[in-house]
Amino acid sequence: MVGIGPGAPEDLSGRALEALRQAEVIVGYRPYIRLLEGVLSPEQEVIGSGMRQELERARLAVDLACSGRRVAVVSSGDAGVYGMAGPVLELLGKSGGRDRVEFQVVPGITAASAAAALLGAPLMHDFAVISLSDLLTPWEVILQRIEAAAKGDFVIVFYNPRSKKRVNQIGEAREVILKYRRPDTPVGIVTSVGRPGQMLVISDLNGFLSQEINMHSLVVVGNSRSYVRDGFLITPRGYRL
Amino acid sequence: MVGIGPGAPEDLSGRALEALRQAEVIVGYRPYIRLLEGVLSPEQEVIGSGMRQELERARLAVDLACSGRRVAVVSSGDAGVYGMAGPVLELLGKSGGRDRVEFQVVPGITAASAAAALLGAPLMHDFAVISLSDLLTPWEVILQRIEAAAKGDFVIVFYNPRSKKRVNQIGEAREVILKYRRPDTPVGIVTSVGRPGQMLVISDLNGFLSQEINMHSLVVVGNSRSYVRDGFLITPRGYRL
Repeated sequence: MVGIGPGAPEDLSGRALEALRQAEVIVGYRPYIRLLEGVLSPEQEVIGSGMRQELERARLAVDLACSGRRVAVVSSGDAGVYGMAGPVLELLGKSGGRDRVEFQVVPGITAASAAAALLGAPLMHDFAVISLSDLLTPWEVILQRIEAAAKGDFVIVFYNPRSKKRVNQIGEAREVILKYRRPDTPVGIVTSVGRPGQMLVISDLNGFLSQEINMHSLVVVGNSRSYVRDGFLITPRGYRL
Repeated sequence: MVGIGPGAPEDLSGRALEALRQAEVIVGYRPYIRLLEGVLSPEQEVIGSGMRQELERARLAVDLACSGRRVAVVSSGDAGVYGMAGPVLELLGKSGGRDRVEFQVVPGITAASAAAALLGAPLMHDFAVISLSDLLTPWEVILQRIEAAAKGDFVIVFYNPRSKKRVNQIGEAREVILKYRRPDTPVGIVTSVGRPGQMLVISDLNGFLSQEINMHSLVVVGNSRSYVRDGFLITPRGYRL
């Protein structure tokens, strides 16, 4: 399971690069495989598939590995954060393949870190990472998490804030957070981190919904002490400067 | 601000490597600089300092940059997660140096990702990152965060779980979490990720305090659905397998 970082080949770790080069077969979501052009060699077998086919990819990878092939399953960001490490490991356990297959997760720079780096220093204090996708999780559970994170004054990082079919979740999340935080709490939106079309906006809880937010965006909501200065979003760690 | 990942040079991204090579001066906590042996060249000026001297390092880096030098400030893991990005950016704003200095955060693989990769797939669902260090944050605030995260059924990653002087915080955290989670909730402890002496233990809320936990450890507490299989800690994402 190889985390390739947010997008640009320069964000790959040496370990990830080596794991990809050693693999006989590369399995992954097609757009992520395209990010690796120039890294993979023409002799390597590449199996790309479409959106929401995580389970099919995981099954294929487990089958290939059980048949003795060296497989790299590609995740963008970190393979361990909403990535492919989970489904592959779960399937491997279920299939009884654990005895036959050597398994390794190669971590990557997760989207939260990459987005934070562009915004300034929003994650300098405790933070919560929440996916707004309710495909696999009931919306009530997600809402409870948002409420808990807002109440606990965590900086909140929303993965999957919006898709073509899921439009209103981020607005509901905003309503919940506004019960606990000021309308001028800074909000950063980073879209397509490290990829063509990268966009960066710093707004606030009051106004951020009028900005472009899509399935390639990450939304970072500051805590009660976060502020914006010189165009950077900063959450103070508490040093007396 | 350069995040060098958890420890091993192989965890550096290509971008981080390039930033370090381009720097005239490298500033950082001495043990982190030692991890970079073999990466830095003898011509580069290296300024290492001791523990808890983050502010001194940040000031020095800002002064050097304002005087026209190209400076890399090194953080282990991700520079943006409890790292040096915050204090440097805050000081830069205060000193009025923002106009004269070009500033960039190069993200790295944060310790949570690196620890999770070794444990299996514990961060496959929403998680909260909490530092147990009360040097800069009142303990009551930290306790409230722990309570919120426990109540919200987040996987919880504790940074700085224990030091020589801070011994009891992790025990208090455990008490709070036990109000909301079963005693057999899995807990992973990873110490010195990617560095000499790396240690890995999977235990549970009931028993994990009897394990070695120190200032180089990260403690990962599963959510209500996390489980251990074949020696891996897994938080299911919700796929029907």
